Amino acid sequence: MTQIEAARDNKITRKMEAVARAEGQHPALIRDRVLNGTVVIPSNIERDITNLCGIGTGLRTKVNANIGSSLGCEDIKSEIDKLACAIEFGSDTVMDLSTGKNLKKIRKLILEKSPVPVGTVPIYEIASKKMASKKEIGSITVDEILSCIEEQAREGVDFFTIHCGVTKNALKQLRNSNRLLDIVSRGGALISTWIVQTNKENPFYEYFDEIVRIAKKYDITLSLGDGMRPGCLNDATDRAQITELVTLGELARKARKESVQVMIEGPGHIPINQISRNVEMEKSLCDNAPFYVLGPIVTDIAPGYDHITSAIGGAIAASCGADFLCYVTPSEHLRLPTLDDVKEGVIATKIAAHAADIAKGIKGSQELDNAISRERKKRNWVKQIELSIDPKKAKQYRRSSESAPKNVCTMCDEYCPIKIYDDSTKKKDDVYHAIKEGL
Amino acid sequence: MTQIEAARDNKITRKMEAVARAEGQHPALIRDRVLNGTVVIPSNIERDITNLCGIGTGLRTKVNANIGSSLGCEDIKSEIDKLACAIEFGSDTVMDLSTGKNLKKIRKLILEKSPVPVGTVPIYEIASKKMASKKEIGSITVDEILSCIEEQAREGVDFFTIHCGVTKNALKQLRNSNRLLDIVSRGGALISTWIVQTNKENPFYEYFDEIVRIAKKYDITLSLGDGMRPGCLNDATDRAQITELVTLGELARKARKESVQVMIEGPGHIPINQISRNVEMEKSLCDNAPFYVLGPIVTDIAPGYDHITSAIGGAIAASCGADFLCYVTPSEHLRLPTLDDVKEGVIATKIAAHAADIAKGIKGSQELDNAISRERKKRNWVKQIELSIDPKKAKQYRRSSESAPKNVCTMCDEYCPIKIYDDSTKKKDDVYHAIKEGL
Repeated sequence: MTQIEAARDNKITRKMEAVARAEGQHPALIRDRVLNGTVVIPSNIERDITNLCGIGTGLRTKVNANIGSSLGCEDIKSEIDKLACAIEFGSDTVMDLSTGKNLKKIRKLILEKSPVPVGTVPIYEIASKKMASKKEIGSITVDEILSCIEEQAREGVDFFTIHCGVTKNALKQLRNSNRLLDIVSRGGALISTWIVQTNKENPFYEYFDEIVRIAKKYDITLSLGDGMRPGCLNDATDRAQITELVTLGELARKARKESVQVMIEGPGHIPINQISRNVEMEKSLCDNAPFYVLGPIVTDIAPGYDHITSAIGGAIAASCGADFLCYVTPSEHLRLPTLDDVKEGVIATKIAAHAADIAKGIKGSQELDNAISRERKKRNWVKQIELSIDPKKAKQYRRSSESAPKNVCTMCDEYCPIKIYDDSTKKKDDVYHAIKEGL
Repeated sequence: MTQIEAARDNKITRKMEAVARAEGQHPALIRDRVLNGTVVIPSNIERDITNLCGIGTGLRTKVNANIGSSLGCEDIKSEIDKLACAIEFGSDTVMDLSTGKNLKKIRKLILEKSPVPVGTVPIYEIASKKMASKKEIGSITVDEILSCIEEQAREGVDFFTIHCGVTKNALKQLRNSNRLLDIVSRGGALISTWIVQTNKENPFYEYFDEIVRIAKKYDITLSLGDGMRPGCLNDATDRAQITELVTLGELARKARKESVQVMIEGPGHIPINQISRNVEMEKSLCDNAPFYVLGPIVTDIAPGYDHITSAIGGAIAASCGADFLCYVTPSEHLRLPTLDDVKEGVIATKIAAHAADIAKGIKGSQELDNAISRERKKRNWVKQIELSIDPKKAKQYRRSSESAPKNVCTMCDEYCPIKIYDDSTKKKDDVYHAIKEGL
């Protein structure tokens, strides 16, 4: 029985209860939102997840970290270290995007070790096999696709990115567009190649019902991928992108009818002034399905700093209603992320998600800020550091430059405004009282 | 003759021309906006600035870097290095916020070496003298204030932060508020102390006309400071803050009437959902004077990462109409920034300003993104790196992990979507053509 089927039977599952507990919400609210599709709980029935997470309306904005090898960077241990690092800094889910020879081994290990939901992009495995045997992408058969999806499902993958919206129609819009970067999604590029080589319709679209059937069996959440996402600001919110989004909305409804949980993936690179319309469009075209955005990156000129460009876009998108942020690391557009890049990416994205949660009014968010602010007022450095997002870094900064009077910092030293204000009010509370009374 | 006086005489000054050239705008437009106060050109008549800059409506969002010593961190050379670093990474102005013994020497050197406008906060020098001689802040006299301002004006300072809105009335609102952090502005805390100790009204408010007189003589831009700015999200947009803003609007009009250029300083720490209303309120209460924001920081929980929390807030504020972003470095709330912190702070803030400029539709902004995107499409790494905001960092990232086939990166290697798409379209342009034609 899938979560949606249980909800339809008015049942509150153990998983719904866990999500409700984590969010401080009523279990019945989670059930209702699973039923109407505005919340998903990615969790394969074959796998036990320590940290279940709900994604969607009214819940804390979640963060995903992409890990996994690429050809030539296939160190298994380093990917497992990245998993641990992503979890340490608060990633709510991970996706294993491995390509190359060790793909299966890495996935198996990640599924074994990850306390959080794990997602994959099955087309990567299918294409990797073809490329390893020097065969054309166009030689991929529907059977190969379905059996790979079924195998990964059996292994326990919790959510799949399926690029079912890269249709001939969307490609036609792309070819007629003024894009500078055409396709920048790996899945999108592979499927467009398949279409070009076979002259047939996207099998993930054509055989979507079959994919839904497998997802239902394991209660896997389908994440409908955006193969047409813009790869630069110039390409944002164009007909190719929106044509795909319309298809994703159509397929999302289909999946839900079959009691399969579904979320929608979104861009990418978008100018700040187009972010809210992108979120609103996803919500209206896809029956308010949870929106999972990659970035969005708000300027193309900052390779090396794309954790910052995407923290800006992610914070805006989430405050407008996006539910799930895929991290972007400083190495985006330049290299496979290192362990340190993973850390930087997760923290920047957690900052964006948390800042948006305050704007969304998510329960408990502002309280975290108030707690550290109270300690800042007391100039209690130990507690401020404890309550900060990366206590190790905060401590190291503070230690590197400790001021002689230990209750201030070297930014202002004796001119610490908090200290000055407190000293003056303590000494002269009578005058202050007079001011308060309206002198 | 001040810039405003010249504009009133219908004159286009050399400075207006320089600003127009830098912005790709008509000189007459700059003149009109200087006249109606929506653009300022901070530039003391006593100093020659190589890189003049206009700040305000329709112009590129500008970035300021705060440098300067604090007690115990008084290394002159290190502050001069920070100046060079801020300029290298594109800071449009700098403020010397030095306190302590070497304050005058540092200011003199910065004024000598800075190719960009230099701002100061005169109350810091006045208070430093008192504190050095162990005298109460309340012993500061009006004469001491005016003579310090006049001296700094003669030395060539281009803009002054004047905390003229910290009035008894604003303090009364503060005392009745539910703030967690009361005052976090150094100037605000000093003036509130002065008021408490003397039981008199803020001299920067009471003698504002005298300050305007000095500013007019040197055509110094007054930056009306926000001593009541919120120091945490909980304190944002409250009656104390807005009471001060109303006063700043009143005084801004006064200064303009005397042909003195003026801008308004703003918060601080604000939740994302309150940023646009803060910008709109400044514009309506202050006759559309340029808005100079510090951050805003959008969550309090990230000391060590406040260049990111403020890049988020700054990008949103500027895209809503803020004109001038004061950088925040990773060391904010923890220590005086190091050279590396200055670099990180300037770059994060430049990213925010540029992303906002694209949203604002500022001339030439999107073109920078399109240029790098075209090179990304060609997989021309040398040019991509050249066009990026920090070519050194981008190059180092790329070099650290060069892929065997040099025209891709190790993120995707052979699975580079740009490569896959290009290969497939090159090989099969006939099929693609068919798709384009509506097959």
